[in-house]
Amino acid sequence: MQVVRELDVVKEIIRDLKNKGMTVGFVPTMGFLHEGHLSLVRTAKSENDFVVISIFVNPLQFGVGEDFERYPRDLERDRELADSAGCDLIFVPAAKDMYPPGYATFVDVDRLTEGLCGASRPGHFRGVTTVVAKLFNLVSPHKAYFGQKDAQQALVLKKMVQDLNMDLDLFILPTVREADGLAMSSRNKYLNSGEREEAPVLYKSLLLARELVARGERDPLIIGKNMEDLICSARGAVVDYLEIVDTEELKPLKSIKGRCLVAVAVKFGTTRLIDNIFVEV
Amino acid sequence: MQVVRELDVVKEIIRDLKNKGMTVGFVPTMGFLHEGHLSLVRTAKSENDFVVISIFVNPLQFGVGEDFERYPRDLERDRELADSAGCDLIFVPAAKDMYPPGYATFVDVDRLTEGLCGASRPGHFRGVTTVVAKLFNLVSPHKAYFGQKDAQQALVLKKMVQDLNMDLDLFILPTVREADGLAMSSRNKYLNSGEREEAPVLYKSLLLARELVARGERDPLIIGKNMEDLICSARGAVVDYLEIVDTEELKPLKSIKGRCLVAVAVKFGTTRLIDNIFVEV
Repeated sequence: MQVVRELDVVKEIIRDLKNKGMTVGFVPTMGFLHEGHLSLVRTAKSENDFVVISIFVNPLQFGVGEDFERYPRDLERDRELADSAGCDLIFVPAAKDMYPPGYATFVDVDRLTEGLCGASRPGHFRGVTTVVAKLFNLVSPHKAYFGQKDAQQALVLKKMVQDLNMDLDLFILPTVREADGLAMSSRNKYLNSGEREEAPVLYKSLLLARELVARGERDPLIIGKNMEDLICSARGAVVDYLEIVDTEELKPLKSIKGRCLVAVAVKFGTTRLIDNIFVEV
Repeated sequence: MQVVRELDVVKEIIRDLKNKGMTVGFVPTMGFLHEGHLSLVRTAKSENDFVVISIFVNPLQFGVGEDFERYPRDLERDRELADSAGCDLIFVPAAKDMYPPGYATFVDVDRLTEGLCGASRPGHFRGVTTVVAKLFNLVSPHKAYFGQKDAQQALVLKKMVQDLNMDLDLFILPTVREADGLAMSSRNKYLNSGEREEAPVLYKSLLLARELVARGERDPLIIGKNMEDLICSARGAVVDYLEIVDTEELKPLKSIKGRCLVAVAVKFGTTRLIDNIFVEV
């Protein structure tokens, strides 16, 4: 497995591979890999000849006062994990190469980015779509893989690929969870032991929503109130958002119908966690 | 020479060509081809195995009250001209396929797009960069060709390609002119015979600027005043803008130094013409 930092080098390696008729799978990440990432890599490896992981803590997608500086970084650990999962190349670009002085070009997806995390984190999705557009152009994969944990990101990127006619297939794979239901996230590392104990309440609240729907409840307000009560029963938990939305436009629903996305963001101290599930009636 | 309207078909044709090791040159246009376009096609043909022209009057780059509706269209004429210049494929997408209902993704280049035509035509360059990003993804050319007549567009697109790490080379070829100096443009067709007679004043004003610089004048204000006087001496000519800017950032210069771009936009009735030249000291 190679580790490549230079943009031109990664382009050339991929060009050579593609000239030989090989297929390329791509897993963009911010590093500090966990089983969620590794499940993407293993799927990518099973579907492509060559798998690239990018590791780039993208400054553009962090807002002022967010955790860009303290976001966990450990390339040595990531390298071993990526290798063990079948990754062929880790691409680790430098911020100064991704955004050289005078950088001026941005990709925006309207509407889909307005609610949920887009409302809580202004500018976040512009950062995500811009960096992913760049990474797609650099790696030019046949297939790219993202996790369902970042449900809105997944939909926004699918929309970008479709709207800009990008020549690749984008796959969204299921959220991988800890034994107690907590969605895997590099940010789980921020939690102290007390917070870690309470953190599964996100998933519990989502399961509660599913159960209420299964029992016949169709009112998002009632479901939301029950979820909120449950989340607030966890020590230190503060709801950032809690929404039941349609799966196309991510617009809040007036009643549960068809396939819906239940999405939550909860803060424990300065740590913000997100999670989501689908419910269907 | 083929004429292709379907997005998927053009993608597949290009993929097959590239799999055979052929190189692809691309000339994006809004049609109503003239010698300026054809010179791009001939250069593309001399540098690539296969040349694609796109013809798409892009609604996104026209403002309210601009000439989208009346922009000249004549595919039969374009087809013959393109064929004669060595074009291998004309790609004529439909607006409903380029911007299907729910379309939401846009590419923006900051700063470079603020002055000159960007100031006169708000939203214009967002339309240009978005459609060209889409066309580049659909055609995935090795090389793309644009005319120097649209100087700001050329710089903005170069910036986009560089910033987004697009895998192609972009070439800017010299403006092609009528015998009397008028820059070739599909919009010249709008001019009535009186306006057509006066229209070379754009180029004359640019040559005047060059002459003044050659004679030692270094003050953009004095040069601009002389140009303006000349332009206003033409019947019906109204200056939209008239600027002397640097060639990197397109910022107005305080004094003529190094390589500068002299750019003008002039209206004759409802017809807006642009032109530019470089001057160097």
